[in-house]
Amino acid sequence: MTGYKLYGRAGWGSAIVEAQLAWYGLPFTFEPVDDLFKSPDARARLEKVNPLAQVPTLVLPDGTVMSESAAITLLLADITGTDSLVPGPGAPERARFLRWLVFLVANIYPTFTYADDPARFVSVNTARDPFRAATDAYAQRLWRQVNGEVGAPWFLGKRFSALDIYLAVMTRWRPKRGWFEIEAPRLFAIARHADQRPELAAVWQRNWPA
Amino acid sequence: MTGYKLYGRAGWGSAIVEAQLAWYGLPFTFEPVDDLFKSPDARARLEKVNPLAQVPTLVLPDGTVMSESAAITLLLADITGTDSLVPGPGAPERARFLRWLVFLVANIYPTFTYADDPARFVSVNTARDPFRAATDAYAQRLWRQVNGEVGAPWFLGKRFSALDIYLAVMTRWRPKRGWFEIEAPRLFAIARHADQRPELAAVWQRNWPA
Repeated sequence: MTGYKLYGRAGWGSAIVEAQLAWYGLPFTFEPVDDLFKSPDARARLEKVNPLAQVPTLVLPDGTVMSESAAITLLLADITGTDSLVPGPGAPERARFLRWLVFLVANIYPTFTYADDPARFVSVNTARDPFRAATDAYAQRLWRQVNGEVGAPWFLGKRFSALDIYLAVMTRWRPKRGWFEIEAPRLFAIARHADQRPELAAVWQRNWPA
Repeated sequence: MTGYKLYGRAGWGSAIVEAQLAWYGLPFTFEPVDDLFKSPDARARLEKVNPLAQVPTLVLPDGTVMSESAAITLLLADITGTDSLVPGPGAPERARFLRWLVFLVANIYPTFTYADDPARFVSVNTARDPFRAATDAYAQRLWRQVNGEVGAPWFLGKRFSALDIYLAVMTRWRPKRGWFEIEAPRLFAIARHADQRPELAAVWQRNWPA
């Protein structure tokens, strides 16, 4: 095998990794995965590679299996030896970058784990809608806090980073761009700006065909 | 100010950062925070430093406020310029380290966010116990998966790392050491081994006085 293999699904979290592979110009093949919530078959197939059956799963050229987009983000910067998406150790933006990278995946991302399919965790039928509403409200509170922390034109101010890729992708999920435009306008502006990066145009097009 | 300031609570996630500060011999003061679930006062005080009111919050000597233990783990390795807790870029264990560091905070940690105080998310009273049970069962499934991935005597095999500190601390939380001894014996062995590191003895003693 000569390149990377990315297991993913258009519009899902794999878009964050796909954008980075494209950005760095790393050769990769895309292995489409069916909706893991709905297809036991898709789960079973992905579990053979990653027992956690998560998207994204990335197989490196040496066969190493990686999961967790934030871990992949840090690892690809190591592998390519470039700091165009991840400020290097010693860079003044390093601390903020690490803090908010982990914040996005450890705080906001789980709101989808829990609320995308409430039946996974909430067995009492009448409790599912309120649970999803409470979890979505919590996500909105977290997003408002992030909105108060970001710079312009990018998350870290002048320099583009992987955080901008995260915002471009995650603002397309609940509560979606219309909410961000009104309630978190700084995040909306960054996401719109990232939409226009020519280096990423093909990735955005594949994930969200017009 | 001359050192680090760590906002934390005995036995909570701040122990993970406290252990690393002690390991590196970095000077720090510990600012005790009351139970954030129960004390609006404690929340209000911490929010002045970190609007997210999370433990751990770490203020660096230059005044930078950091949250997220995994981000702090990576940053302290940068700052100290040593690789005794975090395998450096290019180290063969780097990919596994990053993958499981993020896995712990993005997958297992949130099970506490949601289940420690189910009333935050589950408004329907009769649904709270089943929700906590389902979330705890999910956490146990995740821990079993981690148990299948770890080496011996440490998470990464021969070399100690911050992942071992995470296991020493997190295995003291639900479902607790008794469960791990039976159901995830490799994690239990690592945790017990980390309990005995002389460099960390004082930290463990402060967090879990006999």
